[in-house]
Formats: sequence, structure tokens, C-alpha cells
Amino acid sequence: MTHPSPDFSAGAAYVRGEYLPIAQASIPLTDWGFLRSDATYDVVTVWDGAFFRLDAHLDRFLNSCRRFRLDPGKTRDEITRILERCVSLAGLKRSYVEMIVTRGQPPWGSRDPRQAVNQFHAFAVPFVWIANEEQRERGLHLLVSDVQRISAASVDPTAKNYHWNDLTMGLLGALDAGADSVVLTDAQRNVVEGPGFNVFALSQGVLVTPRDGVLEGISRRTVIEIAQSLGIPVELRALPAAELRSAQEAFLSSSGGGVLPVTRVDGKPVGEGVPGPVTRRLLETYWAWHGRPAYSTPVRY
Amino acid sequence: MTHPSPDFSAGAAYVRGEYLPIAQASIPLTDWGFLRSDATYDVVTVWDGAFFRLDAHLDRFLNSCRRFRLDPGKTRDEITRILERCVSLAGLKRSYVEMIVTRGQPPWGSRDPRQAVNQFHAFAVPFVWIANEEQRERGLHLLVSDVQRISAASVDPTAKNYHWNDLTMGLLGALDAGADSVVLTDAQRNVVEGPGFNVFALSQGVLVTPRDGVLEGISRRTVIEIAQSLGIPVELRALPAAELRSAQEAFLSSSGGGVLPVTRVDGKPVGEGVPGPVTRRLLETYWAWHGRPAYSTPVRY
Repeated sequence: MTHPSPDFSAGAAYVRGEYLPIAQASIPLTDWGFLRSDATYDVVTVWDGAFFRLDAHLDRFLNSCRRFRLDPGKTRDEITRILERCVSLAGLKRSYVEMIVTRGQPPWGSRDPRQAVNQFHAFAVPFVWIANEEQRERGLHLLVSDVQRISAASVDPTAKNYHWNDLTMGLLGALDAGADSVVLTDAQRNVVEGPGFNVFALSQGVLVTPRDGVLEGISRRTVIEIAQSLGIPVELRALPAAELRSAQEAFLSSSGGGVLPVTRVDGKPVGEGVPGPVTRRLLETYWAWHGRPAYSTPVRY
Repeated sequence: MTHPSPDFSAGAAYVRGEYLPIAQASIPLTDWGFLRSDATYDVVTVWDGAFFRLDAHLDRFLNSCRRFRLDPGKTRDEITRILERCVSLAGLKRSYVEMIVTRGQPPWGSRDPRQAVNQFHAFAVPFVWIANEEQRERGLHLLVSDVQRISAASVDPTAKNYHWNDLTMGLLGALDAGADSVVLTDAQRNVVEGPGFNVFALSQGVLVTPRDGVLEGISRRTVIEIAQSLGIPVELRALPAAELRSAQEAFLSSSGGGVLPVTRVDGKPVGEGVPGPVTRRLLETYWAWHGRPAYSTPVRY
């Protein structure tokens, strides 16, 4: 009797040293990665058979690990090979690829995180868009939430983490109100970030994106580089919610879709209420840059 | 050939409708309870064969569920029976019993939390003390951290959640400095809470515990009730870090040990540097109250 070979078509995961179909992948209920959200992660995408800016994602992941004192227990090359194997097992040309370290669990009775054996996990699934096709076409309708993003005085936003309750509660409020997604603010009512994305506003001809209290997105960085290469002035500074509402154009940046036009904020049109010309130019260039050899690491299937 | 019966001696869990030994219990890697820490929980203890204040814990758990819009999919009675079965399978007379709801996962491609099927999980393990015997005897050495507790403007602290990165990073700093545990502050440098406990200070004859920005602990409530019954004045108000440092006595309250004396704060002795008389009286009464029929639900083993 032979075992049927596992079906990786919905995605492949690496957990506890094994490759498994995504639906079979799990973490122990008692891992502090779950019971204390004591974990860090990063997401890199594969587009048309190549990782996009893998080096930048690995740099940030290893920085996040250091910040939270989590040890992946793998070298950079080992991590790369595991991610590649997940993608190739699933046979995905376009994929959303996540790498994770959890605290694990200290010996029974100990509450000292330093005594835990940290655990590395990874998975590759079909590419995830943070907005559907219709939303990408017409532009997203965004709500500015009253929920404040967790402050940098509490959790370092530059180290990627799963502390999303504020984003989730804000998102639920936005969806209830008929919007597509949400952006949170800080205590001064400056816009910071939303669930899985950074925010940009074109304001008096200048592209503005929040400087503080945000994840330093790789897509955000790519957009900034593109704008600079196109001669569009960029400012990293506080972005008051009122300035976003009265922007000429607005968009989100995310690994889950690149440049995503925003055409309504709090129910009112942004500019003409359609994706603007600067947004469209950045969007096209974002995808064109996926062909740049320096940013592209072909997957060996 | 017969299967050996499962060994529940290290603890028993209820996951996906099944009872499993704790070491085999897991949650799917893709459950948003993990990937977004989109979950709530509560912990009730069993002491000498009976749940302590089970009703209060169930009330708080169901409130937390409502607050985060998570549906346990079980009635209060069903939850009680599952918790009881976990404890009795593990044969534990003294147990730490956790009930959890996770968001689950929405259909593939959706990012709408409302479309997810929430999941109920539970487990019972041997009683967990948040301080070891030596620490409980001599009193805990506590550090007041510079890390700020996540603000109530971001995450509702009265709905129990796994957003512990601030507590974990603060704890790591305290352990590195040679302390036993940590207490975090708010933006005004008022003491709020630590990893798994509330804080009390006896200040000019009055028992003070922070009113805002904290989990409303059931042990905290029990201590307040005991103090009132003993005629000790209690104030729920802001507790400046400086006032904790100069307190006559200090202690923690937690399901993981009841009343835990604190004898040093930031390296300096509290009062005489030994567990004080008011603390000792509250501690003794805390355990004596475990015999109260109104607070006690015997486990049917």
C-alpha cells in the first residue's frame, strides 16, 4: 500500500522541520507565539516566478528578530531555501510567502522567555490581494478610524508583529460603515497605517507618507524610490487626517497589491474621485520594476 | 491490536471538537487568532478539586467575546462542561484552565473578519504559579519599566487579549536587571499592570490599585472584596510609580498565585523589605475564601 502524495496545491508550509500542505500546518496551542503573540514575521511575494526584493525582506525580518530577541535558528541562506521550497512544492508562480519566528515555550513552570526554544515556521500560498479587482479598478473607499494605532512607546512598529487588535476593530467599524478598509491614527490624529498597508497622499504636488509610528514597508520604500526616480517630490512627515481628506490623490502601498488607489476617504471623493495620474504612473512603474534584476530572485522550481 | 489510551497527565485540551493530550493540541497556522492575534481568552483555576469563581470568569470571558465580536459558538453550560472535562481527563485537583476563542479564517481571498468561522479551544494543565516558592516566601523584586502598556485608546484592556509584546519586552529588561518581574506604566508614569497580574500598594494606610488601563482581574476584585470585609480602606485611582516605590507594603494579585508579596521595587526595599502584615492577612484570607460555597464549583471527576 502506498501513501498518496500530499496535495500542496493550496499552499505549502514548513513547520517543526517538515513540509506539509497548508491545511495541515499548525502550531502548538501552548507556543507563546500564540498565547502571548510573542512572534515576529515578514511577508515576501513571488511574482511571475521570482521573489521581489527578497534581500530587503530578509534584512527586515532578521532586524525584527533581533529587536524582539527571537532567534530563527536558521541562517539567511537556510531561510531562503525553505521559502523557495515552499513556493516550489506549491508550484506557485505568484505567491504570498510568510516567514515566522515564535517564542516557543520555556520549560514547564518557568515564565522566563529567555529559556524558551524559539521556532521557525514558513508558508507559501497563492498571491493575496488586499483589495479585490473591482476595488482596485475604482479605487478603495477608506475610513479614518477613531481607534488609535498601538503607540511606538508600547510596541516597536518597525519590527513586524501580530498585534492587530486595533487594526481589526478599526476594520470592523469601517466595513460596517460600508467602506473597503480603514486607516488608524495616532494620539494627535495623524494618519499612520492600516491593516497590511502604508498610506500616501499627494498634497500640493508633494507625495507625503507618515514618517513615524508605522511599519517601514518594503512596498512603501519601493514607491519612494520610484517617486524619486520620476522626479516627484516626497516628504516623510506627519500626515494629519484632514490633509488626507483634502489630498489631490491618495493610495496605499502593500506587498499585497503594490500601489492601490484610494478614491474616497470618510465617504467623500479624493480629488476627482477616480485614480489620479500620479497614482497610475507609480502603479505602472511598481509592476515594471518587478523586472529589475537587482530586485528579482528567480525561484528554482 | 489496541491503541494505548492517550496520556493526559501533563494536561488535556479541547480543540476542533476533540479532547487531546496537551502536547498534541495545536491551532492552524493560518488561524487569525495566531496571524493577527485576533482572539480572546480567560483563565480560571481549580484548587483542591473546585473551580474558584467560575461564574465571574465566564461573565468576563463572554464580555470579552462581545467586545471583540468573537463568537464561542457554545453556551455558558457547554463551556463549563468542556472545561470540567479537560480538568477531569487530566485528573488535576489544582489546575490552570484556559478558554479561548480565535477568529478562525475567512474564505480564501476575503479579508473580512465577519466572514470567519470563530473557533473555541480550551485546556487544563497543572496549576501555574507566576512566582516560584522562594519568590513567594521572600517577596518579589519588581522593576518599573520604561515600556508603556498598550493604551486603552488602542486595545481595550478590560477584554482579555494576547497583546503582550510590551509586557514581554518589559519582562526581558527586568530579568536582565536581576528583578523577578516587571510592571508597566502609562504615558503619565502611573503604574498599570504586569505580565499576568494587577498591582496593589498600601499607601498611608490605604490600599491603592490602578483604576484605568488595566485588566479587571477577578483576583483583584477578590482582594478588594476581602479588604472591604476586613475594614481596610481601598482606593481605585492612578498609582504613580513614585508612590509604589515609597509604599508601606506592595503586592500583586493574579489567578496564578492569589496575593503575591512584593518586597523590592527598582532595587529598593518596600517598607521593611519583608512581606507586610496587611499583605499577609489578605493572602491568608484569599486562600480561606476558596472554601466559600458561593465562589466554589466542585469538579465532577
